[in-house]
Amino acid sequence: MSKTSKAVVLLSGGLDSATTLAIAAAEGHQCYALSFDYGQRHRAELDAAGKIAVQLGALTHKTVHLDLSSIGGSALTDPDIAVPTTKTEGIPVTYVPARNTVFLAIALGWAEVLEASQIYIGVNAVDYSGYPDCRPEFIRAFEQTAGLATKAGVEGRPFQIHTPLIELSKADIIYKGVELGVDYSLTVSCYQADDQGRACGQCDSCRFRKDGFAQAGVPDPTRYY
Amino acid sequence: MSKTSKAVVLLSGGLDSATTLAIAAAEGHQCYALSFDYGQRHRAELDAAGKIAVQLGALTHKTVHLDLSSIGGSALTDPDIAVPTTKTEGIPVTYVPARNTVFLAIALGWAEVLEASQIYIGVNAVDYSGYPDCRPEFIRAFEQTAGLATKAGVEGRPFQIHTPLIELSKADIIYKGVELGVDYSLTVSCYQADDQGRACGQCDSCRFRKDGFAQAGVPDPTRYY
Repeated sequence: MSKTSKAVVLLSGGLDSATTLAIAAAEGHQCYALSFDYGQRHRAELDAAGKIAVQLGALTHKTVHLDLSSIGGSALTDPDIAVPTTKTEGIPVTYVPARNTVFLAIALGWAEVLEASQIYIGVNAVDYSGYPDCRPEFIRAFEQTAGLATKAGVEGRPFQIHTPLIELSKADIIYKGVELGVDYSLTVSCYQADDQGRACGQCDSCRFRKDGFAQAGVPDPTRYY
Repeated sequence: MSKTSKAVVLLSGGLDSATTLAIAAAEGHQCYALSFDYGQRHRAELDAAGKIAVQLGALTHKTVHLDLSSIGGSALTDPDIAVPTTKTEGIPVTYVPARNTVFLAIALGWAEVLEASQIYIGVNAVDYSGYPDCRPEFIRAFEQTAGLATKAGVEGRPFQIHTPLIELSKADIIYKGVELGVDYSLTVSCYQADDQGRACGQCDSCRFRKDGFAQAGVPDPTRYY
């Protein structure tokens, strides 16, 4: 693959998306990292995203402002809904309605402007929280939609949505990232991190992450409050 | 259809989306109108959307801020790209990459929060500017994606994307809207309207609109500058 092949990489500032960026770079792409300031509970993950983009050599890091809190409906965007600290049945309240559809749609728009055909997203269907928009069938449907939605698609330049983590366990993701030089101390996974990016250690996201480091036998660099 | 059936209606402030809102209301829905402040060239269409929502009895009108101008790539979002005033070949520079995908994705998120299953969008595949995301095949693909993307979809409550204008000529749209009481003097279609909502009369959108009123034999209430 030529080094001039461009990829838009969704970068939240968490462990998964940092690993995804490292993989996209290792696969020879010029990486355009994309984050969203969408009214999430804390800004520590956006600060983390900026540092990770630099550490992993992204060509650009763009943060798009998008007020998802105005539609609410999730513990991550509505301060009146508490983040659960124990495992819950079914799809949890941290689910943000249509979030990955929105993020991929904006990534698609930017990719088309950049004349990039590759989009990377760090969704995971194994150690995940049961979000419907992390499943392979959703990703394939979006990819097909992207081809029909765009001038590039109509003109015969379809988009590929890459999900390199989708079948990996959290421990395997961490192995892969360590191999590629990801500095996980920069990443913030916690749903309710504090301003310094320190984690609660209690939410779903913290628990998956903590278990992942333990199973991988890799020292956990996470700072807890 | 029960009067309590909720619909999210994309409302730009133009002629097509105003007619779409009138149709959704006439079909018995409680209408939640949704507009985007996405860095478009002028704000007159957002002012128009607010007035139309009131005139046509929408329950709520929400404007979501989303900075598409940060990705650029269109004469509608990048001040360095001029709006063409003559017919051009192919997909014109007023095409905003992935715009309807982004708008529908956010509408989907809001619909899920509202527990609404119906989404209305005023796309048109007849008298249109050749935008790929105004075609029926795009809409059907997005609808399928929406069912896979969401908690509602997974739980057996899929979404319907309604495109009541898709096969209508501009004249037929105007006939329909007049019949339903749309006050077209409130609508702004021009790509480069001034602050008072007055139109240029030259751009693609103005020309389709002007021809539509002429063909419908309806007096054109558009104010030109």
